Amino acid sequence: MAILTRILELAPRRLPGSPGYEEAARACLEEMRRLGLRTWTEPAVVPHWVRGGPAEAVMIGPMSGDRRPLEAAALGLSEPTPPEGLEAPVLEARSFEELSALGERARGAIIFFNHPMDRTKMETFSAYGEAAIFRTRGASEAARLGAVAVLVRSLTLRLDNAPHTGMVAYDPAHPRIPAAAVSTASAEALSARLKAGPVLRLRLRWDCRNEPPSKAPIVVGQWDGTERPGEIILMAGHLDSWDLGPGAHDDGAGCAQAMEAIRILKVLDLKPRRSLRVVLYPDEEYGASAGRAYAASTARKGETILAAMESDRGGFLPIGFGLGSAESFAKLKVWEPLLRACGIEWVRPGGGGSDIGPLAERGTVTMSYIPDSQRYFDVHHSALDVLASVHPREIELGAIVQAVMAYVLAQEGI
Amino acid sequence: MAILTRILELAPRRLPGSPGYEEAARACLEEMRRLGLRTWTEPAVVPHWVRGGPAEAVMIGPMSGDRRPLEAAALGLSEPTPPEGLEAPVLEARSFEELSALGERARGAIIFFNHPMDRTKMETFSAYGEAAIFRTRGASEAARLGAVAVLVRSLTLRLDNAPHTGMVAYDPAHPRIPAAAVSTASAEALSARLKAGPVLRLRLRWDCRNEPPSKAPIVVGQWDGTERPGEIILMAGHLDSWDLGPGAHDDGAGCAQAMEAIRILKVLDLKPRRSLRVVLYPDEEYGASAGRAYAASTARKGETILAAMESDRGGFLPIGFGLGSAESFAKLKVWEPLLRACGIEWVRPGGGGSDIGPLAERGTVTMSYIPDSQRYFDVHHSALDVLASVHPREIELGAIVQAVMAYVLAQEGI
Repeated sequence: MAILTRILELAPRRLPGSPGYEEAARACLEEMRRLGLRTWTEPAVVPHWVRGGPAEAVMIGPMSGDRRPLEAAALGLSEPTPPEGLEAPVLEARSFEELSALGERARGAIIFFNHPMDRTKMETFSAYGEAAIFRTRGASEAARLGAVAVLVRSLTLRLDNAPHTGMVAYDPAHPRIPAAAVSTASAEALSARLKAGPVLRLRLRWDCRNEPPSKAPIVVGQWDGTERPGEIILMAGHLDSWDLGPGAHDDGAGCAQAMEAIRILKVLDLKPRRSLRVVLYPDEEYGASAGRAYAASTARKGETILAAMESDRGGFLPIGFGLGSAESFAKLKVWEPLLRACGIEWVRPGGGGSDIGPLAERGTVTMSYIPDSQRYFDVHHSALDVLASVHPREIELGAIVQAVMAYVLAQEGI
Repeated sequence: MAILTRILELAPRRLPGSPGYEEAARACLEEMRRLGLRTWTEPAVVPHWVRGGPAEAVMIGPMSGDRRPLEAAALGLSEPTPPEGLEAPVLEARSFEELSALGERARGAIIFFNHPMDRTKMETFSAYGEAAIFRTRGASEAARLGAVAVLVRSLTLRLDNAPHTGMVAYDPAHPRIPAAAVSTASAEALSARLKAGPVLRLRLRWDCRNEPPSKAPIVVGQWDGTERPGEIILMAGHLDSWDLGPGAHDDGAGCAQAMEAIRILKVLDLKPRRSLRVVLYPDEEYGASAGRAYAASTARKGETILAAMESDRGGFLPIGFGLGSAESFAKLKVWEPLLRACGIEWVRPGGGGSDIGPLAERGTVTMSYIPDSQRYFDVHHSALDVLASVHPREIELGAIVQAVMAYVLAQEGI
């Protein structure tokens, strides 16, 4: 918690390629040096998007003076509206089928994707994945029909007043139309207005912009092993985060836990035989470009990264651990009792993550630390992802679990 | 969440035997009737303690004007101080061994039990049990040495400003000296002052009182089974709660979940073969007298309560289910996949609880629903146990789990 607090104090805004990200990189390097790690950075080139001012989104009814603001925020990598804004009729779609059914009516309109996350799914990440396609692909699907902009219902199971942003992925085959998230409360209000009387226009304005790709450091700290320093156990988080809040859970918690795990092992005066390496990536949110760059870098030549584990699901209660391939799982399962003693309820084959995934092609066993995810989307990608939403004992238990697994791997290999 | 919200709105203070408890009983009977249950009450006689005004606890240093208030609240069932208060030197003890070592110095003194909950224990209930003996037995152990009052460090893993109260259990062999909890922040401040210079007095004043035992209804609602109405599956919570806050988790959540489980089964248009009975007890906090009275009541004659499950660990994330004796566990384990689909990570033999425990002697299989407990003691027995600390999805998932288990038992027996 102390490490997370310091990162968030020094660098509460960490969009890839932003000055805030640079601050965060400096803060983490200092933190790593304080822990006694050997530190360096590796270059990465990341998308560079600048939000600009707050987004404006206003419902305009047919009666004079009938205007009501919506809580909106541009999606990451969105194009801006024209400087003067745009105004157009709005049409609701809960699915791509409903979008298709709009046909010619979509031309010149603003499409409002109102697909709620499915509360009946126990796996919140599965409900998220299913709903996120409207955020990522909705703009291009709407543009295909001639729409001029999209609003997307925020991806959270709660009714709240905070837009939850995230990346839009434009299909090069269609015009890049502006895209923003609206809070779930605003989505409900807008949907109710559309049901009451469908003649509704929206006025939208946001002035974000896409800049040329930018350099951003991958931040690395290493504790060299006493016996086999050339064999590396990698612990990963992503240091970039959405700019609407400080990204305490996503993924401040993952970065802080990796460093906290090192701190715990140091306090216990343990000496890992193999090297422990903390890697903090500068672009998970725009598509994990840095993870691919890291794996493909010439700096990896001759390196043996035995195992990599990633924590990118928030700093919540420890629940599970994905222990890599079926083969590695068969060997590592023997450590299950140790993990259970720290609160882990299950170990399974599988695991990896956006940032460490590309290492698997080089023979690294990729694993994931899995905390409880029932509360994650409450705060995810929004202004609500603040330090106060992180429970000190939960994040601490997560760091302990990761310390245990990292140490076991460092001592025993796979 | 809706049911919990209504109970807390109508009856935010529910000490056994208090007018607030009566309000709560009425609210729950109405809620049960709204659910279509057949309702009644059964009489119980419970301890009756009245808090009176706020507790005063002030550190008084040797320098003139050196006074600093502590955050304190009388323990439940505590005797009052003299009306004018009392003033005496204060001595710290972290264990009963340290208390014994004080010997004659304890005579005439106030004993400050400063035993923190053990953070290294994964099982917070185990850390709680270990520390709670100073709250329950500390006053009498101190009185044995001639102490005049005790302050007890609050039982929470957090540093906070809220006294966490709970019951004191007086040993009839020793004088009943006044006892109060101090917040962990105040405990740290007091301990630091004692280390800095041991000459410190406390001024204490609280005007709670023990009244003659009082009547309080056990609240019951039943959904008669379609095929074997005489075989009963009982779902329990305790409706009494500490008065410093609304008792949202302890045990508003347990009461609300039992009713919510009924609501879920009704909404799904299911028809249990055996009867489902919700029982809300009026005294868990003073020693579970109502649970014993319910089990021993002549109203139990001829009743077949096949199974009873209790939820009294807050409305947090579902984790486990204790499925009764080894014998019942062997039979009920077949339902594990159903429970796992609702988020339960493990089923084990065992289970029961303060209120339903006495039913086991009559042949009832006693079970417990186990949510995650890492955050429970943050709010437990304090002003922090408010609705805002209950996560709507967590309490809902808990109700679903209990609905599934109750329905399975109602359909299939054991």
